[in-house]
Amino acid sequence: MASQEAPKTCKVILADTIAKKLLAEVRDSLPGLKGADAGKPTLAAFLANDDPHAVQYAEWSKKTCEENGFAFDLRRVDKEDLEEAIITANNDAAVDGIIVYYPIWPGNHQQDKYIQETVSLAKDVEGLCHTHLFNMYHNVRFLDPPANQKKSILPCTPLAIVKALEHLQIYNPILAYGNRLFGKTITVINRSEVNGRPLAALLANDGATVYSVDITGVQLFTRGSGIRALRHQVHDKEGWTLKDVLPLSDVVIGGVPVESFKVPIELVRDGAVCINFSSYRNFDGPAVKEKASIYVPSIGKVTIAVLLRNLVRLIANQSVKS
Amino acid sequence: MASQEAPKTCKVILADTIAKKLLAEVRDSLPGLKGADAGKPTLAAFLANDDPHAVQYAEWSKKTCEENGFAFDLRRVDKEDLEEAIITANNDAAVDGIIVYYPIWPGNHQQDKYIQETVSLAKDVEGLCHTHLFNMYHNVRFLDPPANQKKSILPCTPLAIVKALEHLQIYNPILAYGNRLFGKTITVINRSEVNGRPLAALLANDGATVYSVDITGVQLFTRGSGIRALRHQVHDKEGWTLKDVLPLSDVVIGGVPVESFKVPIELVRDGAVCINFSSYRNFDGPAVKEKASIYVPSIGKVTIAVLLRNLVRLIANQSVKS
Repeated sequence: MASQEAPKTCKVILADTIAKKLLAEVRDSLPGLKGADAGKPTLAAFLANDDPHAVQYAEWSKKTCEENGFAFDLRRVDKEDLEEAIITANNDAAVDGIIVYYPIWPGNHQQDKYIQETVSLAKDVEGLCHTHLFNMYHNVRFLDPPANQKKSILPCTPLAIVKALEHLQIYNPILAYGNRLFGKTITVINRSEVNGRPLAALLANDGATVYSVDITGVQLFTRGSGIRALRHQVHDKEGWTLKDVLPLSDVVIGGVPVESFKVPIELVRDGAVCINFSSYRNFDGPAVKEKASIYVPSIGKVTIAVLLRNLVRLIANQSVKS
Repeated sequence: MASQEAPKTCKVILADTIAKKLLAEVRDSLPGLKGADAGKPTLAAFLANDDPHAVQYAEWSKKTCEENGFAFDLRRVDKEDLEEAIITANNDAAVDGIIVYYPIWPGNHQQDKYIQETVSLAKDVEGLCHTHLFNMYHNVRFLDPPANQKKSILPCTPLAIVKALEHLQIYNPILAYGNRLFGKTITVINRSEVNGRPLAALLANDGATVYSVDITGVQLFTRGSGIRALRHQVHDKEGWTLKDVLPLSDVVIGGVPVESFKVPIELVRDGAVCINFSSYRNFDGPAVKEKASIYVPSIGKVTIAVLLRNLVRLIANQSVKS
């Protein structure tokens, strides 16, 4: 019998599919989360720009909140009034979590960061306050050691991609928790402080070899030799480019917020897993399907599911006696 | 008798002159600051780059510390080890204050900001931790209301410029404290989160009309109408440029970190006060002296004096019972 080559077919997994499972878990956790006479868990969302991606994300968030038992309170404010509006929400017991749609000051990440720090740690559903980020980078899971009752919050998009990789079985449940990416090589194209760098750190903390790529070059994130280090290590790869790292990568994650950027598919390994978290398509549709084994064209709906999961955690933290 | 025009002479004030007075105050405060058997006040300084301006600033800081009764502990570290090194210093009782020479990651302000937040608030001699910046923007002077025993720290370069303006009598001591710039119009060219924006806010909080200029445009910082508001207000001036604001300004402050940038002197008002805080000369030397009444060509040595003043405040805060 002549051997027959298996058909090369790429499985396209939509964010909706991954989000559904997470949202079911979130809904299951709602009864008993707040007292019987308390209102619905409430997310206050601040929109201070006209960015079409932000507006769409706010609309999706509203729909997802309302379908799953949450109140979504969209507050449109002028950017110069945003700080005071956040402080008001910080002090408002009716608000359980706060999200802000960035960028507020396009091209001025520093001032956006100032706003991120203005959000109360107890309401930081996005996991962008320094204490949350610090814990994430250091692989610290709780806010209140040694009691360890209050969970630290992970940033939404990086956690959404982790959840996607779990769904796709890239995390290997045979391996020990905290090391389930051991042996995997992953390229993350984007090293922003909000998305790409936390993502590279999370994946490295879970045992992967991660190449973090941006316009300044390539960095290698690992757990170091063995799995002894608590925290990932970072090394510059002088002179390296996508050409060096894409052929090595089991997973390629694109997050470049530029319409014209496309991952050079010819460099991607046959059968790689490709995930796009940019608002723009970083992978050319037909070409990626010829090469990848699995392709996730967007992640936004998973991010919203993770946002509600984080909100549930914040509310659970509220009830911990300190 | 024929009237004789007064000679137009520009007074050049060097940073050294302004710094001397501040350093004398700092030295006077040292006896009794720490217990008799405690060591000298110690500043740990982290150098994780080869930026020549940073190296020079570190050398000046060392000299100024040693001449004035402080210990200066320069620690050269690889940028990837910086975070851990700062955490060690945070936990080291022998370290009273921490300074980091930026940029660590050139072109990535976000990651530098992450490092700024890693410095303990109690050792943040640069006033760059969010709580210090928040208090500065909101005109809050203490860390521990309502006791008001622990002073909040102001960022060094903006405070150095305030001290320079006091020295130059631009702050009018006839007016009430907190309103001594009332009636003054000041242009600040630079709106970084470390220098230009805090400076514009400080000056507006003290009553000035401030035009804050960067490549994205002009913003107006004021205390609002009258002097009722606790906090400054900010308004975009759509379409405005240096052309609109320089002719209105009593004081022009340049802080553009680019060698080729020069303030267009022909737009500066005759008799204006010109101050440069960039490492590069933002004012063309001969031309500015033809136009300005007072010219301060650099501010770095005042910044170092303010650094030591902040360190004294941090040590005084340590002894406050909380």
